[in-house]
Amino acid sequence: MIAVLKKETTDRQIHDLTEWLESMGLKVHLSRGDYATIVGLVGDTSNIDRELLESLDIVESVKTISEPFKKANRKFHPEDTVVEVGGTGGTGEGGSEGRSEGGSTVGCVKVGGGNFAVMAGPCSVESRDQIEEVAQAVKDAGALILRGGAFKPRTSPYDFQGLKDEGIELLEHARAHTGLPIVTEIMNPNHLPMFENVDLIQVGARNMQNFELLKELGKINKPILLKRGMANTIKEWLMSAEYIMAGGNENIILCERGIRTFETYTRNTLDLSAIPVLKELTHLPVIVDPSHATGVARYVKPMALAAAAAGADGLMIEVHNNPSKALCDGAQSLTPEQFADVMKGVNKIREVMK
Amino acid sequence: MIAVLKKETTDRQIHDLTEWLESMGLKVHLSRGDYATIVGLVGDTSNIDRELLESLDIVESVKTISEPFKKANRKFHPEDTVVEVGGTGGTGEGGSEGRSEGGSTVGCVKVGGGNFAVMAGPCSVESRDQIEEVAQAVKDAGALILRGGAFKPRTSPYDFQGLKDEGIELLEHARAHTGLPIVTEIMNPNHLPMFENVDLIQVGARNMQNFELLKELGKINKPILLKRGMANTIKEWLMSAEYIMAGGNENIILCERGIRTFETYTRNTLDLSAIPVLKELTHLPVIVDPSHATGVARYVKPMALAAAAAGADGLMIEVHNNPSKALCDGAQSLTPEQFADVMKGVNKIREVMK
Amino acid sequence: MIAVLKKETTDRQIHDLTEWLESMGLKVHLSRGDYATIVGLVGDTSNIDRELLESLDIVESVKTISEPFKKANRKFHPEDTVVEVGGTGGTGEGGSEGRSEGGSTVGCVKVGGGNFAVMAGPCSVESRDQIEEVAQAVKDAGALILRGGAFKPRTSPYDFQGLKDEGIELLEHARAHTGLPIVTEIMNPNHLPMFENVDLIQVGARNMQNFELLKELGKINKPILLKRGMANTIKEWLMSAEYIMAGGNENIILCERGIRTFETYTRNTLDLSAIPVLKELTHLPVIVDPSHATGVARYVKPMALAAAAAGADGLMIEVHNNPSKALCDGAQSLTPEQFADVMKGVNKIREVMK
Amino acid sequence: MIAVLKKETTDRQIHDLTEWLESMGLKVHLSRGDYATIVGLVGDTSNIDRELLESLDIVESVKTISEPFKKANRKFHPEDTVVEVGGTGGTGEGGSEGRSEGGSTVGCVKVGGGNFAVMAGPCSVESRDQIEEVAQAVKDAGALILRGGAFKPRTSPYDFQGLKDEGIELLEHARAHTGLPIVTEIMNPNHLPMFENVDLIQVGARNMQNFELLKELGKINKPILLKRGMANTIKEWLMSAEYIMAGGNENIILCERGIRTFETYTRNTLDLSAIPVLKELTHLPVIVDPSHATGVARYVKPMALAAAAAGADGLMIEVHNNPSKALCDGAQSLTPEQFADVMKGVNKIREVMK
Repeated sequence: MIAVLKKETTDRQIHDLTEWLESMGLKVHLSRGDYATIVGLVGDTSNIDRELLESLDIVESVKTISEPFKKANRKFHPEDTVVEVGGTGGTGEGGSEGRSEGGSTVGCVKVGGGNFAVMAGPCSVESRDQIEEVAQAVKDAGALILRGGAFKPRTSPYDFQGLKDEGIELLEHARAHTGLPIVTEIMNPNHLPMFENVDLIQVGARNMQNFELLKELGKINKPILLKRGMANTIKEWLMSAEYIMAGGNENIILCERGIRTFETYTRNTLDLSAIPVLKELTHLPVIVDPSHATGVARYVKPMALAAAAAGADGLMIEVHNNPSKALCDGAQSLTPEQFADVMKGVNKIREVMK
Repeated sequence: MIAVLKKETTDRQIHDLTEWLESMGLKVHLSRGDYATIVGLVGDTSNIDRELLESLDIVESVKTISEPFKKANRKFHPEDTVVEVGGTGGTGEGGSEGRSEGGSTVGCVKVGGGNFAVMAGPCSVESRDQIEEVAQAVKDAGALILRGGAFKPRTSPYDFQGLKDEGIELLEHARAHTGLPIVTEIMNPNHLPMFENVDLIQVGARNMQNFELLKELGKINKPILLKRGMANTIKEWLMSAEYIMAGGNENIILCERGIRTFETYTRNTLDLSAIPVLKELTHLPVIVDPSHATGVARYVKPMALAAAAAGADGLMIEVHNNPSKALCDGAQSLTPEQFADVMKGVNKIREVMK
Repeated sequence: MIAVLKKETTDRQIHDLTEWLESMGLKVHLSRGDYATIVGLVGDTSNIDRELLESLDIVESVKTISEPFKKANRKFHPEDTVVEVGGTGGTGEGGSEGRSEGGSTVGCVKVGGGNFAVMAGPCSVESRDQIEEVAQAVKDAGALILRGGAFKPRTSPYDFQGLKDEGIELLEHARAHTGLPIVTEIMNPNHLPMFENVDLIQVGARNMQNFELLKELGKINKPILLKRGMANTIKEWLMSAEYIMAGGNENIILCERGIRTFETYTRNTLDLSAIPVLKELTHLPVIVDPSHATGVARYVKPMALAAAAAGADGLMIEVHNNPSKALCDGAQSLTPEQFADVMKGVNKIREVMK
Repeated sequence: MIAVLKKETTDRQIHDLTEWLESMGLKVHLSRGDYATIVGLVGDTSNIDRELLESLDIVESVKTISEPFKKANRKFHPEDTVVEVGGTGGTGEGGSEGRSEGGSTVGCVKVGGGNFAVMAGPCSVESRDQIEEVAQAVKDAGALILRGGAFKPRTSPYDFQGLKDEGIELLEHARAHTGLPIVTEIMNPNHLPMFENVDLIQVGARNMQNFELLKELGKINKPILLKRGMANTIKEWLMSAEYIMAGGNENIILCERGIRTFETYTRNTLDLSAIPVLKELTHLPVIVDPSHATGVARYVKPMALAAAAAGADGLMIEVHNNPSKALCDGAQSLTPEQFADVMKGVNKIREVMK
C-alpha cells in the first residue's frame, strides 16, 4: 500500500503517521519529493483501513498494490483448480468414478485445468416430461451437466417464481434418468436443505454480493457456480468467491454472464476479456453463459464459439424443447437441434485449441 | 402492450396469434402497414409473458406501454405517501404523537408529502459512547432519525462486519437517550427478530434485488428504507418496492445513493434526476444519501443542498465524532460541526422551496 | 509517478531501470518490500510515457500522483477564472462596460468567480421572428446570454442540420435587438470565419475530443464553452480544456450536460457531483445544461435548482416560443413562461447561497 | 412508428392529430384501449420528428419500429458488401489484380463476404527502419494490410502527436517495400490531400461522431475504416456509417474496439456480441481491434481468437519490433513473434469455421 502525502505536510505530522503505522506492525518507507511525500507500507496491510487512511487531512491519495483476494489468488496457488461436479460431490456416496442413482450412474464431471464442460437445460423446470426430454437431448448432444431453474429470481413479483422444491425433485428425476449431474440456483440460505442432492449450486448475478448467502455456502463442501453480478467488477467478483473460500469451501466455478452497459441490442454485454484476465488472477475455473448475456437465441452460437476460443473452461446454455412455449426467457433458449449444432462448432474450436 | 409482426407474417399466422391472445382475455387491435403489422393488446396484459411473445418467429418486437409496477404507481395512487417512522411504527406502542422510552419520548417522524427528514449518524456503530455522542450531536443540529450500521455489507470477508445484535442494542440505547427513531440495515431475513425494535429497516444497495429478503419484509408492517442498487434502473428499483408492497407492506421510503458509471473522481455518480422522475412515477417518498454516493466528505454539502433543491423528501448523511478514527468509510463522514453547517444550508434551501 | 516492480525483479534490472529514469532528469526513490519494490519518481515526469513504463516486463503497475493538466489546474492558479462574454470579447470593440451594436448595447457578461450567468434560447435558430421573440422573452426573464444552434450535430444524416451561416446572422440580429451576447456551436475549424462575431463559441459533447478543432480554438482569443463528452471522465474533459489553453486561449467555461449510463428514463444522467469536483481541481467556471441532460422539459426546473444549489456558475437552458413546433429537441424545451418560473426559483436559491 | 396517447385525450385532440399526421402523407391506424389509445403510423415516417411528437401534451410515448439507417441496412441490401483495399482503391491506377509500386505489386485485399483480412503494424510510425521492419514481419506472418499511426489523437496536448505527413510518407515507403496496402487515421478534413495515396482511411473512435469529417469522407471513393466510438451504441455507429454512405461512398469497414464500462482490468470492454448483431443489421464488413480494446498485449491473442470464432471479417492488431521502446501504447503491442503465434491460432480457427 502506498500513501501520497500532501506537499504541505509537516515533519511532525509525518513522524506521527509513521509511528502509528509502525505500531500496526508495518515497515514504512518514506520518499520525499518536491511535490509530494510518498509513504510505502510494506508488510501485512490487511489491518489498515484504506478509507480511513484516505480520510486523514495530510493524505492526498492511497493506492493498493497487492490484490485483496488471497485464497482465490493464483499467486499463492499457481496450478488450476479442478472442480468435480457429481460423483461424490452430489451426496457424499460414490467416488470420482461416478455414483449409481436410479438406473443410471451419475457422472463425475471435472471443470477446469483443461477439462471443458457444457451445462445445458431449460431456464425453468416446468414438468417431468419437459425436463427429462431436454436432459436426454442435451446429453445426446454432448452436455455433461443438466441445468434448470427451480427458484427463479424475477424482477417482478407478479412473474412466475419457479416450481421451487418440486422443481428440484424433477431435476433429480432427470438426473436418475440420464446420469447427468444437476445445477440449479439458490436464493435463500434457508433453502439449503432442499439443495442437499443438488450437485452444483448456482449463485445468480443478483445475489453475487448477498454476503449472508455466500457465508452459508462457505460452510458446505458442495461445488458452487458463482455468476458475475451484472454491474460488478472482476475484483468484486473474486472477493465474493473469497467470501465462500474464507469459510472453507474452495470448490468454486466462476461464470461470466454479461455486464450492464449502454448498448441495448443485446440484453447485457458479454465481457469475454474477463476470461484471460481471470486466468491470470485466479486458479478457479471460468465458464461463460452466452444465453443470458445476449438474451437472443441466434447470438448464442457465435458467442459460445468465441468463449471457447478465448479459453473458457465451459459453457452454460439454455435449451428448451419448445422455445415458443417456455414460461420464461423463451427468446434466448435454443432448440435441441440448435444446441447440437452449437456443440459441434464448440468441439471443433476445442479441438484446434489443444 | 404492442407486438410488431414481421412483414412476411401470413394471415393464417396472424389469425392463430389473435385467437391465442384473445383466449387470455385480451382485446386485440390489428393495424396492417406496408412494412409491418401492429398488434395492439388492450386489457390486463399481466398474464402475458413478454419474452415468450418476443420469442415467437413471427414477432419482430414487443413494446410495453404501461408500467409494470402497480402498487407503487402514482397513476393509481395520486397523493403522496407519508411514511411514519418511530412512534407506533417502532414497537406497536404509543401513537403518532411519539412513544415513551427510557427518559425520552421517541418521536414519530413523517417522511414524504412535504415532510422533510434528515437521517444522520455513523457508518458503523462502534461503542455506546460513540453512538450516544453522535446521536446527541446530530439531534442538536436538526436530524430527526439516527442511522448507524450494525450489520455491514463489506466487499471483503476480511473487513470489519459490524457489531451485529450488539450494535442494534447500542442504537436502542442512543434512541432512549435522545428520542430519535433509529434506522439500520438488514442483510438476512433470519435476522428479523433482532430488528423488532428498529424503527426503520434499511435494505442496502447490494440487496435491492435479494427478492427473498424483500418478500419477508413485505410480511411485516414496519417502514422500509429501500436503497437503489448501484447498477439498477429506476424501473427495477420500483419493481423491488413492488415486491415488498405486494406482500402487504406499503411503508417504503426510496433512497438514491449513486449509480455505477465510468467516472472515478466520485465513488458513484449521484443521480439526482431520479428525484423528479420518481416524483412522477410513484407516490413513495424519496431521500438521497450524498455520503455514499460521492464517498468524499467535502462533496457532501453541495450534493445535500442540490438534493433538497431537486425536491428530495429527506437526506441520509454519515456523521462521525472523529472521522479519522472511524473503522470504516471514514473518508466520507462529516464531523458534527460540518453536519451542522450542512443542516443550516439545507434549511435555507427548504425555506425558499416552499 | 510511482512504479511498482514485480517481486522477482533482479537487482541488475532495478539498477538499469534507475539509470534510465535518472537519465531523464528524475530523482528515483527505491522502497524494497517483501512483496514488491516501489520506485518513486520525483521531478518532471511529463517526459515519461506512462504506458511505455507499464509495458516493461519487470513493472507490475504504474500510478500517477499529480494531475496531467497544468494550465487548468487550480493548484497553480488558485483564484477563480472569470470569463467575460460579449463586450470586448465579441469583436474587439468596446470594453467590459459593453459595446454598442444596432440600437442596443451588448452587455459584457462575467461568468465565474461568483458571477452567475444563465444562457437560454432555442435548440435551433429557425427564423428571425422566432429568435428575436425568444431572445426578448429570455432577456425579460433574466437570461444574460442568448443561445441558439446554427450548426446542428445530428445522429442521422437525414435530420435537419441547422440554418448554418444564416442561423448565425439571425443570432446577430437578435443580439442587436436585445443586447444579449450570443453563444452557438462550432463543428468544423473551417467554419471559424463565420464565428467572428459570435461572443462565445460552443464545443459540443461529440466534439470534446476533436483535438484538431480544439487546437484551432486555442489560437483565438474568444471565450469557449466546452461541453463534457457524454462518456468522458472529468479528467479527460480537463485535458480537452488543456488542449485549448496550451494554445494560448485560457477563456474557457466548462458545461456539464449529462453522461451516458444504463438509466433510460432520462436521456443522460446529469452528473452534478462534477461541480464540486471541478471546483476543487480547476479554476475554470462550470455551468450546467439540464435541458440536454434530462431531455424532458418537466425535469429541467428541479435540475436547474439543484445545479444552482450545488454551486454551478451558470446554466444553459433551452427555451422555445412554441415547443410543439420546434424542428428539433422540442420535448426538452421550456416555454418562456416556464423559463421565467425556473429563473425565479434559481434566483431564490442563489440568494440563500450567498 | 407508434404513438401512445394519454388516457385523457379527447376525441377532438385525436382528430386534430390524425389530420396533421395524414397531411404529411401517412396512413393513421387508431386503436382505442381502456388505458391508452395507440396511433400506428404507416408510410414514410422519416419526415416526422420523433421528439416533436413526443413533446405534444397528449402523447405519452412514441416508439420507432423500423431502423433509421437505410443504406447500411441489410434489409435493403441482403448480400454482404466486399470492400476492396489497395489495388485500384489506392490511387486509381491498377486493377483488382493489384498495382505496381516501387519494386512491389500492391495487393488488392478484399474484406467481407467470407474474405478475412488482418491489419497489423505499430501504433505510431516512428522511423523508416521501424515501419519497414515491422511491415516485413507482419507480412511474413500473414497480415494483408499495414497499419501505422501518422496523426495520433492523444488525450493530452503534451503527448506525442505523431509524425503527421512524414509518417504517411514512411508508410508509403513500407508499402512500396512490401506490397501491403496501408491504413492510417485521419483527424481533420483539411488533411485529406495528404491521404491521397493512403489505401484505407481510418476514422478513430473519438471522431466517430465528427459529422463534418464523415461528410467529407462521403465525397471520396476511398474505403473507410470506421471505428466504434467508445461510448456509442451500435445504432449510432451505423448512423455514422450512414453519414458517409449518404454522401455516396459505400466502401466502409466497421471496427469494434471496445466500449467504456466500469471494469478497469482492461482498458475498455471488447463487445464481441456486436459482431453477430451487426451481421444481422448490416451488409458492411466488421473487424475487431483487440489491442486497443484490452490495452494489454497478453490479452490480445485470446481476444483475437474469440473475434475470429464470433465471425469477424478481420482483425486490427498492434505489432512493434520492440514494444519496450514504443513511443506510445507500448503496453498493448505484440512482438512480431507473438503476432505470428496469434496468426497461427487465428488461421486454425478460420479453418474450422468454414
